Amino acid sequence: MMINRAKLRQSFENIRSLTEALCDPLEIEDYVVQPIEDVSPPKWHLAHTTWFFEKVILEKFEANYKPYDPTYHFLFNSYYQSFGERWQRTMRGVLSRPTVREVLAFRKAINERMTNLIETCSDQDLPEIGRLITIGVNHEQQHQELLVTDIKYIFANNPLSPVYNSIIKEQNVHLPEPAMIQISGGVMCIGYDGNDFAWDNEKPVHRVFVDDFHISNSLVTCGEYLEFIRDGGYKDFRHWLSDGWDRVQQEGWQAPLYWSALGDEWQMMTLSGLRPIEAAEPVSHISYFEADAFARWAGKRLPTEAEWEVAAHNLNSDLQSANLLDTQAFHPLANKTSFLGNVWVWTSSSYSPYPGFVPEAGELAEYNGKFMSGQIVLRGGSCATPRDHIRLTYRNFFQPEKRWQFSGIRLADNLHK
Amino acid sequence: MMINRAKLRQSFENIRSLTEALCDPLEIEDYVVQPIEDVSPPKWHLAHTTWFFEKVILEKFEANYKPYDPTYHFLFNSYYQSFGERWQRTMRGVLSRPTVREVLAFRKAINERMTNLIETCSDQDLPEIGRLITIGVNHEQQHQELLVTDIKYIFANNPLSPVYNSIIKEQNVHLPEPAMIQISGGVMCIGYDGNDFAWDNEKPVHRVFVDDFHISNSLVTCGEYLEFIRDGGYKDFRHWLSDGWDRVQQEGWQAPLYWSALGDEWQMMTLSGLRPIEAAEPVSHISYFEADAFARWAGKRLPTEAEWEVAAHNLNSDLQSANLLDTQAFHPLANKTSFLGNVWVWTSSSYSPYPGFVPEAGELAEYNGKFMSGQIVLRGGSCATPRDHIRLTYRNFFQPEKRWQFSGIRLADNLHK
Amino acid sequence: MMINRAKLRQSFENIRSLTEALCDPLEIEDYVVQPIEDVSPPKWHLAHTTWFFEKVILEKFEANYKPYDPTYHFLFNSYYQSFGERWQRTMRGVLSRPTVREVLAFRKAINERMTNLIETCSDQDLPEIGRLITIGVNHEQQHQELLVTDIKYIFANNPLSPVYNSIIKEQNVHLPEPAMIQISGGVMCIGYDGNDFAWDNEKPVHRVFVDDFHISNSLVTCGEYLEFIRDGGYKDFRHWLSDGWDRVQQEGWQAPLYWSALGDEWQMMTLSGLRPIEAAEPVSHISYFEADAFARWAGKRLPTEAEWEVAAHNLNSDLQSANLLDTQAFHPLANKTSFLGNVWVWTSSSYSPYPGFVPEAGELAEYNGKFMSGQIVLRGGSCATPRDHIRLTYRNFFQPEKRWQFSGIRLADNLHK
Amino acid sequence: MMINRAKLRQSFENIRSLTEALCDPLEIEDYVVQPIEDVSPPKWHLAHTTWFFEKVILEKFEANYKPYDPTYHFLFNSYYQSFGERWQRTMRGVLSRPTVREVLAFRKAINERMTNLIETCSDQDLPEIGRLITIGVNHEQQHQELLVTDIKYIFANNPLSPVYNSIIKEQNVHLPEPAMIQISGGVMCIGYDGNDFAWDNEKPVHRVFVDDFHISNSLVTCGEYLEFIRDGGYKDFRHWLSDGWDRVQQEGWQAPLYWSALGDEWQMMTLSGLRPIEAAEPVSHISYFEADAFARWAGKRLPTEAEWEVAAHNLNSDLQSANLLDTQAFHPLANKTSFLGNVWVWTSSSYSPYPGFVPEAGELAEYNGKFMSGQIVLRGGSCATPRDHIRLTYRNFFQPEKRWQFSGIRLADNLHK
Repeated sequence: MMINRAKLRQSFENIRSLTEALCDPLEIEDYVVQPIEDVSPPKWHLAHTTWFFEKVILEKFEANYKPYDPTYHFLFNSYYQSFGERWQRTMRGVLSRPTVREVLAFRKAINERMTNLIETCSDQDLPEIGRLITIGVNHEQQHQELLVTDIKYIFANNPLSPVYNSIIKEQNVHLPEPAMIQISGGVMCIGYDGNDFAWDNEKPVHRVFVDDFHISNSLVTCGEYLEFIRDGGYKDFRHWLSDGWDRVQQEGWQAPLYWSALGDEWQMMTLSGLRPIEAAEPVSHISYFEADAFARWAGKRLPTEAEWEVAAHNLNSDLQSANLLDTQAFHPLANKTSFLGNVWVWTSSSYSPYPGFVPEAGELAEYNGKFMSGQIVLRGGSCATPRDHIRLTYRNFFQPEKRWQFSGIRLADNLHK
Repeated sequence: MMINRAKLRQSFENIRSLTEALCDPLEIEDYVVQPIEDVSPPKWHLAHTTWFFEKVILEKFEANYKPYDPTYHFLFNSYYQSFGERWQRTMRGVLSRPTVREVLAFRKAINERMTNLIETCSDQDLPEIGRLITIGVNHEQQHQELLVTDIKYIFANNPLSPVYNSIIKEQNVHLPEPAMIQISGGVMCIGYDGNDFAWDNEKPVHRVFVDDFHISNSLVTCGEYLEFIRDGGYKDFRHWLSDGWDRVQQEGWQAPLYWSALGDEWQMMTLSGLRPIEAAEPVSHISYFEADAFARWAGKRLPTEAEWEVAAHNLNSDLQSANLLDTQAFHPLANKTSFLGNVWVWTSSSYSPYPGFVPEAGELAEYNGKFMSGQIVLRGGSCATPRDHIRLTYRNFFQPEKRWQFSGIRLADNLHK
Repeated sequence: MMINRAKLRQSFENIRSLTEALCDPLEIEDYVVQPIEDVSPPKWHLAHTTWFFEKVILEKFEANYKPYDPTYHFLFNSYYQSFGERWQRTMRGVLSRPTVREVLAFRKAINERMTNLIETCSDQDLPEIGRLITIGVNHEQQHQELLVTDIKYIFANNPLSPVYNSIIKEQNVHLPEPAMIQISGGVMCIGYDGNDFAWDNEKPVHRVFVDDFHISNSLVTCGEYLEFIRDGGYKDFRHWLSDGWDRVQQEGWQAPLYWSALGDEWQMMTLSGLRPIEAAEPVSHISYFEADAFARWAGKRLPTEAEWEVAAHNLNSDLQSANLLDTQAFHPLANKTSFLGNVWVWTSSSYSPYPGFVPEAGELAEYNGKFMSGQIVLRGGSCATPRDHIRLTYRNFFQPEKRWQFSGIRLADNLHK
Repeated sequence: MMINRAKLRQSFENIRSLTEALCDPLEIEDYVVQPIEDVSPPKWHLAHTTWFFEKVILEKFEANYKPYDPTYHFLFNSYYQSFGERWQRTMRGVLSRPTVREVLAFRKAINERMTNLIETCSDQDLPEIGRLITIGVNHEQQHQELLVTDIKYIFANNPLSPVYNSIIKEQNVHLPEPAMIQISGGVMCIGYDGNDFAWDNEKPVHRVFVDDFHISNSLVTCGEYLEFIRDGGYKDFRHWLSDGWDRVQQEGWQAPLYWSALGDEWQMMTLSGLRPIEAAEPVSHISYFEADAFARWAGKRLPTEAEWEVAAHNLNSDLQSANLLDTQAFHPLANKTSFLGNVWVWTSSSYSPYPGFVPEAGELAEYNGKFMSGQIVLRGGSCATPRDHIRLTYRNFFQPEKRWQFSGIRLADNLHK
């Protein structure tokens, strides 16, 4: 493949500046805190994504490479055993230094060294550098999504309820009637088979048998979820997996994350501040356990990841109209019909290697494969996913109890019960 | 189906007395303790399996039913929310009362009431009673296996190393050369489709696509596993899933459960006491994480549960020659070639509902379905599984870190890599 | 000091058989369990007190000493770093072996070797052996009290509410009117200064300044304590030390240990089974935090240990009429007026070394001194303390949150407020 | 007492601006983090001390009082049950808002309202307002010390080792030879009996009996402590209290907090950055357990608080030459001989009420009394204590395992052993 240095540089610079732009609404103090282990300080995201380029690319390809600051290699390695010792993940929020200013200087310096490398490296090195930059850029896009969800968590857990962005006014559109759509099965191919970038976990394309099934043309809404709550959904063990029911008891779950009772009504914390529940909006910030319980209560089930992928190919998976990060709504919108965007949907599939899976070579083998246990696949992207980062074969994954991502429900069902 | 009262009674009585016979080698004190949450006191198994018959059958069908002791309903319910409050699972080992003598009296009384019911119930009730007794009997067989593994844990964690049974002398047989056997795939049917008893989680029979694959004709042996240990298998993160590696660090795993270093050699605790490692025996008491790491180290992988089931149908799955509970070896034997018995093998499949899965009706819906998260499927039965309890479609399941069952490895591989 | 071998043997044998007699009402199963870390299995007490004689005396003085069972040295060492590694304290209840029968055989064997040593040792060794036996005998008496309180805990936490002994019928006696008695202070001597046995922590006798004070001639009763409860004592933070209030919240304390609400009334678990609260009986099984909160609520305070000792010398501290272990009531009695017996009273004094304190020589230095942090002194003995074990200078000590001992309240007050 | 409004205002304003001046070397990010529960974010100290004035004084005395921000009452209450619900202490470091700028604005506004109140309140209210301001000012001085120790902890736990202040160059002085000085005992009076401010816990003055004793004329130095380390002090259980030994094992203590091995030498983190150990400096940042173990190893003991107070009255307790906060060394200095300053010394006394202790009236009753359990008294002040805040009767108190304060050792001994 012929690599265009100018395009590569453009892509690199765009992604790098978008990350910083996402932090514009923050005060210095907001960059520092880590309310729970899952949520990293925004400052850490800024530094870690930079460390990635320095460690994975500059250290190998830059002539006369010298580390920007050797301590940063310890502080900003996330989970790569191959890259040596790391600062403890639970302790990211106790580091006041480096300051935000210092982190931004780190970004600037690495950006310059990277763009210099792009322009001056040998033609021989270029393909490998290009490949690694593409991974680094996609890695940074994942952290863009995490930045949004982590900022939301930081703000939502502050009694002063800070506001990140102003509300996007939705256009009323004529929405199709909600319905279960029949999809024909058989031996289907799923997985990535193209020439652009995709993660190792999306490959290889392979055959699966999928029976005919039904899938909803719309996401479960807050209004529908409210019926589940009002019907005692959180109080009846029969809807729940055993681990889910334990979690409901331990955590005292009574509604999605960020919902709070206001007298007889519910309100929710959003990145635009506290708002009443909007019945037509897709429900979000629920765990797999809640998604699964809702589906059982509704007499339906969650789709497998293969079913989701097959259905998305058949139905509306328009990328341009989808509500993704670029929309800048930072919130699921009611008037969207694409299988992509709004909220990631929990599938019923455990995160496992595809048949024939081969991890990325070298240290980046640690990127995906080692996490293939105890997690559930989510599909479709969310309002916090960059538009040019998502695709129909994309496999996101989280533990079944996690709720701080924009995660929701699309129901499926068997044809004959 | 015509039910034969005499046969039903015979089956009931056989299983009930086998459970007690398994406890014959115990001292009273051995019945009481619970060294970890997973392991229940033998006394508890004796009582819980009895409670099952009283609660599920007698309470519904016995004329003028009176509880044997109402407190027992609280003490011996395991996890059935439908059956009301329970004594906390972690606290089973702090109950000195009821005594073993009292528990045996409870068993005797319920046995008499059950056999009386079998003989005197109306022809109309008989089919449902028969169905529930079959479930109760299969339930008790599962606890027979747990009794053996729990007693092993209790003994192995006592510095006095008590002995349960004497060693079975193995016959030398001509074993086939270990080899990877090629199995042809396609759209295959897996799951239970017969007329005898099977658990709800084995149904319905359904189609899956399985590519051609290789599977080993033998279990991984202690000798092979020792090579993994000696090659630094427990010290190299690259073999391990991330959760598995965390577990290795936290628990300080260096070998299978029950292995201990004796100078430069290894010995293991067995139900016949401490013994040197026998290289030809199947390795046992390893977690999914260890099975998976071994397979990666060996350049192979674990089979999916579909692959295992397909292969077992094709290869030797002889029941009569298999090393099961009835062999009374209480230990994996080197000279066995059946896919059944010796040790449960970890598959790579998460425990999920089969397409079209319908849970058992009523309170017994809690038996299997609610545990379908966070667990891994094991196949084939072990030296602690009753012979008439196992079949090729049987799905056992445990969390990936569990080691106290007789669990081991059968390797698989892709045809073309 | 001239030591009489026959008397020494008699004392040894008496104490040893009393310990076993205290276990007479137990079933085998009762000997095994450990519901919380504080409570040891009765079997462990039987073995540990025997280990003490073997380890401290036989190992040093027996000709051709051989350990009874080397593993027992590991299993039955409590907390003596000097005596090497120990089985983990929290895990005493997971050991089914040695069995009760084996432990009793261990006792019998060590008893024989000990009595043989008493009769055959040289005159030269006799004083030191006598000194150590006296310590061993007093040590065993402490475990007699613990046996009683641990059995009570084991039974009280069993939903079947087993009974240990039958109720002792109290004689009605003419009790003195409850009153605060004035005691004159000054520079007083406290601590042990006699020629009989006393623990190192009771010495040396030393001077303390004690101001004039008031002390109650009676223990706080259940009836009085009930007023505290009904006045919202457990719900008003103002009565409580900060650590105590945290404990109330965490543990959900609403009454003394073993009390339970029965509709509008309270009942309590005793060694004679469940009983209604008896208003005239001394309240027992309360923590220091509760004793302190009650005193503050009552407008008074707890005595210092010096005040208690001075007062006990001045007022009724009759040993013969006191309710001690020998009474066999196993429960505080209403009609007792001695400062000794019934319940240990919490003082306001932290457990510290007396000025000039010198720990016991050798390994037994670990007996008392190393525990002088984080504990509170209790005085006076209880209905579970052997009569010839208690004295006015005796210092018992427990952490301020402990409740499973027979611990109660005697109020004090300043003369001028 | 005649109260001078101008002086009161001056005192208030001085203390308030000193607090802010102590934060001058900080970056915004440093104000936010809370590495352990004990350590509060500097921002929190700034806000909490301000809340104290608003809540305790303005709310009661200001005409037409309106809360500055009602949420602040929830966020900045520390532990006062009387003042209602509080933000959880362990979660102070997850609050990015209010920002530092907002907190400083809060300070400014309350300062103005306070100075306005001082100048305009009625003569009748003035005495009570003056009394409460004096408490508030002393309260803020305690937080000045905490600010210094908390900043030290925050910096010392950051791998980038930030620097707070530059090193103070010590003057060489002729120091007296280290020696144990004999102090005569008897019935002595201790406690506060003057007319200036003192905390409730220092009163009333009362009599105690103190035997003749020895006390060192100097603090234990780093050099002496190093001998303890090199003699295996942290590896020999015989020096340690049982709770202390447990702590050594659990935490892996091998030296004082902030010491780290650098090859064969030790260095320590100070507020001026990393430095080699200076043998002549007083050892600091040790727990009570370490102080007690060192004393036992040295064949001596810690003084009681009465002994310390008596000795300080007899020996050099010069305030002006002492190394206190005003010195701005922020570190113990070798050339200081006063009993005051440098490091707080651990006494052997548990923190208990003095005989006749009466807590402060009203909500401030919670200030001291409720903490009188589980803590040890420290005396003398440190290099982080404001000069006009310390006195000979001052009782500081911490749990015996705490190490982040400037805490050290002054040895005592019995006259006749």
